[in-house]
Amino acid sequence: MKRVAIIGVTGAVGQEFVIALNKHPWFEVKHIAASERSVKKKFVDAIRDPNSGILKWHIREPIPEYIKDMIVESVDDIKTENLDLIFSSVESEAARDIETKFAKDVPVISTSAAYRYEPDVPILIPGINDEHVALLDIQRKNRGWKGFVAPLPNCTTTGLAITMKPLLDKFGAQKIIMTSMQSMSGAGRSPGVSALDITDNIIPYIPKEEDKVRIETGKILGNLVDGKIDPAKLKVSCTCTRVPVIDGHTESVFVETMKHADPESVKKAMREFSDKVSVAGLPSAPKEYLMVHEDPTRPQPRLDREVNDGMTTVVGRLREDTVFENGIKYVLFSHNEKMGSAKGAVLLAEMLYKKGYI
Amino acid sequence: MKRVAIIGVTGAVGQEFVIALNKHPWFEVKHIAASERSVKKKFVDAIRDPNSGILKWHIREPIPEYIKDMIVESVDDIKTENLDLIFSSVESEAARDIETKFAKDVPVISTSAAYRYEPDVPILIPGINDEHVALLDIQRKNRGWKGFVAPLPNCTTTGLAITMKPLLDKFGAQKIIMTSMQSMSGAGRSPGVSALDITDNIIPYIPKEEDKVRIETGKILGNLVDGKIDPAKLKVSCTCTRVPVIDGHTESVFVETMKHADPESVKKAMREFSDKVSVAGLPSAPKEYLMVHEDPTRPQPRLDREVNDGMTTVVGRLREDTVFENGIKYVLFSHNEKMGSAKGAVLLAEMLYKKGYI
Amino acid sequence: MKRVAIIGVTGAVGQEFVIALNKHPWFEVKHIAASERSVKKKFVDAIRDPNSGILKWHIREPIPEYIKDMIVESVDDIKTENLDLIFSSVESEAARDIETKFAKDVPVISTSAAYRYEPDVPILIPGINDEHVALLDIQRKNRGWKGFVAPLPNCTTTGLAITMKPLLDKFGAQKIIMTSMQSMSGAGRSPGVSALDITDNIIPYIPKEEDKVRIETGKILGNLVDGKIDPAKLKVSCTCTRVPVIDGHTESVFVETMKHADPESVKKAMREFSDKVSVAGLPSAPKEYLMVHEDPTRPQPRLDREVNDGMTTVVGRLREDTVFENGIKYVLFSHNEKMGSAKGAVLLAEMLYKKGYI
Amino acid sequence: MKRVAIIGVTGAVGQEFVIALNKHPWFEVKHIAASERSVKKKFVDAIRDPNSGILKWHIREPIPEYIKDMIVESVDDIKTENLDLIFSSVESEAARDIETKFAKDVPVISTSAAYRYEPDVPILIPGINDEHVALLDIQRKNRGWKGFVAPLPNCTTTGLAITMKPLLDKFGAQKIIMTSMQSMSGAGRSPGVSALDITDNIIPYIPKEEDKVRIETGKILGNLVDGKIDPAKLKVSCTCTRVPVIDGHTESVFVETMKHADPESVKKAMREFSDKVSVAGLPSAPKEYLMVHEDPTRPQPRLDREVNDGMTTVVGRLREDTVFENGIKYVLFSHNEKMGSAKGAVLLAEMLYKKGYI
Repeated sequence: MKRVAIIGVTGAVGQEFVIALNKHPWFEVKHIAASERSVKKKFVDAIRDPNSGILKWHIREPIPEYIKDMIVESVDDIKTENLDLIFSSVESEAARDIETKFAKDVPVISTSAAYRYEPDVPILIPGINDEHVALLDIQRKNRGWKGFVAPLPNCTTTGLAITMKPLLDKFGAQKIIMTSMQSMSGAGRSPGVSALDITDNIIPYIPKEEDKVRIETGKILGNLVDGKIDPAKLKVSCTCTRVPVIDGHTESVFVETMKHADPESVKKAMREFSDKVSVAGLPSAPKEYLMVHEDPTRPQPRLDREVNDGMTTVVGRLREDTVFENGIKYVLFSHNEKMGSAKGAVLLAEMLYKKGYI
Repeated sequence: MKRVAIIGVTGAVGQEFVIALNKHPWFEVKHIAASERSVKKKFVDAIRDPNSGILKWHIREPIPEYIKDMIVESVDDIKTENLDLIFSSVESEAARDIETKFAKDVPVISTSAAYRYEPDVPILIPGINDEHVALLDIQRKNRGWKGFVAPLPNCTTTGLAITMKPLLDKFGAQKIIMTSMQSMSGAGRSPGVSALDITDNIIPYIPKEEDKVRIETGKILGNLVDGKIDPAKLKVSCTCTRVPVIDGHTESVFVETMKHADPESVKKAMREFSDKVSVAGLPSAPKEYLMVHEDPTRPQPRLDREVNDGMTTVVGRLREDTVFENGIKYVLFSHNEKMGSAKGAVLLAEMLYKKGYI
Repeated sequence: MKRVAIIGVTGAVGQEFVIALNKHPWFEVKHIAASERSVKKKFVDAIRDPNSGILKWHIREPIPEYIKDMIVESVDDIKTENLDLIFSSVESEAARDIETKFAKDVPVISTSAAYRYEPDVPILIPGINDEHVALLDIQRKNRGWKGFVAPLPNCTTTGLAITMKPLLDKFGAQKIIMTSMQSMSGAGRSPGVSALDITDNIIPYIPKEEDKVRIETGKILGNLVDGKIDPAKLKVSCTCTRVPVIDGHTESVFVETMKHADPESVKKAMREFSDKVSVAGLPSAPKEYLMVHEDPTRPQPRLDREVNDGMTTVVGRLREDTVFENGIKYVLFSHNEKMGSAKGAVLLAEMLYKKGYI
Repeated sequence: MKRVAIIGVTGAVGQEFVIALNKHPWFEVKHIAASERSVKKKFVDAIRDPNSGILKWHIREPIPEYIKDMIVESVDDIKTENLDLIFSSVESEAARDIETKFAKDVPVISTSAAYRYEPDVPILIPGINDEHVALLDIQRKNRGWKGFVAPLPNCTTTGLAITMKPLLDKFGAQKIIMTSMQSMSGAGRSPGVSALDITDNIIPYIPKEEDKVRIETGKILGNLVDGKIDPAKLKVSCTCTRVPVIDGHTESVFVETMKHADPESVKKAMREFSDKVSVAGLPSAPKEYLMVHEDPTRPQPRLDREVNDGMTTVVGRLREDTVFENGIKYVLFSHNEKMGSAKGAVLLAEMLYKKGYI
């Protein structure tokens, strides 16, 4: 068993790590850390709101037994000698320092943005750009680290990049226009979105989100050439909004391809890609990586967030677009807390483990 | 005072007519009609659900006194002799027959789609395409009617066409990609959207809606030439979704213009258009026809649906789009039950009255 | 395997029967029936809304494969020759005729109110009043039936009766004042509660509900003496409300006991009752029948509806009440679609099967 | 014009003071104060969330012009020389010190709990216990203050005490059992209730709330005898819950009276009380102080929160209770942000002004 630590364990993503690593066949949680106010508390006490007394646990599954009484440590007290891998979901500005410190000694898989935009750091989606893993060797050499930092993308990028991959491979996608309807859990849990702000409402703005999606999509779908990632030649423009949905991001996507792509061919390309995806069979991989619905009323967050425990990217309403020259439009759903963050990070760890990086 | 009737008075739009015509300076409600199960009941009894006992009144303002005890008549019993104008919000397939019957004698302003796509019927948004009113004369002559049918567009078209008008005039818009996040009241009230379907959810499909928006936007923004409307040369592609918001449609819009349109010029064009709009000063016209926010967190349904009693179209997040050659993107909010249907229809009636059509 | 039919299969409760009987070790669904508009359709087509195209499936688990293509039959076409048991969730007034017809030949377990208030019909909660089962023999004899009708209580009664049982046994409960906050799924799914009625709202009235709770609680907790149920000497007064919660009823309960009942003794009584409950070990029985929380922020519908797949009644905030002479107050949560209806009915069938009634 | 200051102006209640004092005929806002992070900012900038950029303004009416550019001052910089009255809605533990400081010089009307339970401090609901105002003279003398502190009750107490007053006067109420379903705005706005905690959920616990209601109800309905308040002989037991409703508290009440009180007599008593209420005619007083519905589906938060701008306490479902000896039960609705706090405080100020205390 590989010995792992979760940094930022009390946050929304940290809690999903707790679930994703419960009874994992290869990884065992040995240490957990969070910010000062949680230190030396049992996990179950650390996630209770001191004012309202409410347990800040928003996941459908109950808190696993293994974690309940585990003591939250200070980040400074986590020693890498006894660890094989760090999962980090620190969201604050401290993320960069924390990840740097650990990566000197052990692999760090991160959901934060701290290192995403460095030239020697790949942004990895397991099954989409596995070949970018080679950049981790260069990163190690460059920085003289024994470990590395391997970040996931922003949770809004994940579904877009996954659905674009087969389109790009088969039809040469050039332009993307996307509007997201993002769930409340994407904004974290402490304090997270205020109910007074979002009930019966839409917030049409999420700071920095649109730039992240644009830059990350290009990098993930780019090619690793001579030790550098050459971003995909893709123009991406998006508007990101917050809607009153608990979990799971919905995105309305319009794409221009280079070659004509009729809807049936695109569905076929997506389904074939899904069937042959590299990560098939890994412990956290879904039975279907990418699912394409014919039912025009899908995807729906309430129905699709549970498909394969949130690890399947779900596509629907795939049809011709009449504005672009070779246009396709569709709606996608991606679970921001599962494939889009913690459990996706665990799937990445599994892939890296199989490749010998962990 | 012009004597008016409301057909379909118990429905969602019908109820908004009741509010929009309360204490109106020019129009007085003399008759109300609805489907058989409501006939011979007082209005206040007709809108009560027979099973749950719940009053199906979803408007913030209380039921006006003038309507409470007014008796709902059968459509067949409404006689045109004593009427100057009919407001029709019949949504069923019966709309066409009903509107035809009345238009033979008196003007009919309708929120239904029954006549929208006829060549001699304009789709009117007061303040946007007032010159299309001339088509009503042709319609009368063609059909040998004393009255006419003047339909409003679908409520999702309204905000799009209003915001596009100044863009088209100044910069020559060519392409529109739009994703809507539509409110639950847009689906009517009996039974309307089921709470089990929409709570914590998004439905990514509204039957027929996208075609309506595409066709209507072109027709409204087109030119009346030789007695025919030549649609605007606009490619429109959209995805329409339903979200858990009570009132008001939000739309995320991406536009390609012919001439370069920098964001500041577009805002200026919108504001100038609003300042000079033709309908200014009419009883139901808003103080601001089109409002452009600098605050990136606007528009929001909860905050913007009350602006000028839902008659103002609100724009925000107006910025450059990088996918289109000359691209602009923005988010708009339009109240589907006010400017987008009943009160917009009353504003149209006011314009037609001023022009001598009523 | 016992061969069963589900009558009313397309409704909210019917769908839960589909889930509760999926891969059941003893019962196999052989026939399904619903109202005329569904007849001769595959199940999966029968539950699609003809107007919106939306699949009216509101359960987290996906539709089981076994039912997808099963053809919905007319109630009249269901023959009892090949059946051992009928589950009926017909809600309309037709329930009485339908249940009568089937009970002549085979056992009928019903979630409807049609037979609940007949003297020779017990209202059964498995684990609470198993001894009332003997009344089924009398019912058969009285009516000359080969089968019988065994109804469950109203879903709001279930949690109240379950939590009151140990209180009554140990401390002699006399008076109950209860306010319910009931979920939207309790109102069915076609059309069910309108989102416009309940979003950001409370409806303080559910027709007939309060009388049902009062009468049923007394009957369930009563004694079977000389072939008749002598209702418990309990005064019950309640106010039932509908709140914007998808699944699961919350009830705020105030009880006067005969003997002094301090909170710790009551908790102990509840836990002991749960540990020794008669239905323990049956396929649909929960690991914990009755769970008592010390955490004052529980029960919560979002957290507690998933506990043991909705089969556990959850109690919290148990403390002294100062208005009654010997007063106890608490909040309970009971899943109206699981223990409160379909899966509770399956648990009842399991108990009756073990006792040789099926 | 009396010169007033609002302390805690950026909070949920503070914002409602801003609305309640907009264009007030007697009171003019001269100074506003809030915590350090808001100081020296314009009001409109002070209420913007620094992270999300969202304007934390949750009131339907837009921000009044008079306040937008007013500079928020530090509490320490507010000088009483130029003020006639202070409205304080400080919620933190600092409330006591702040109110003490100001009360030495000027009247302070407060929505906080800091002084509520002092023997020489009345808890005032204008129209209910106006005679307790005399205690303010004793308070001044006791403490040697030129001003005084006059607190309102907790917002959950308000509706209960108002509806109980005519019951107590006519029928001698003895026992109250109450379950509240409280809105999210009652928990403040920064951060307020998290959407992840409350969407599709109920929180059955609000710290300290139940004790407040019990103690305050007795004190408000008590008699001022020999300079002391003798609490009403009332046993009060309640369970307070939080529900997904934006504004307005709903309470389900069961009462035992001394004399038999049939429902029609109680309704009559409530209506008569309302017609003769002392505060009638004051600028912030509602047209109806207490409204009793016959419609069993009322009160509903969405429909009743706007009645008379939230200043009317609305009662429905008034009927006999069968548990208590002389029992009455009903459901009440009270707007926690209007009559229950800021606008109620302004009404109190108006009453005190008329009596010469300001």
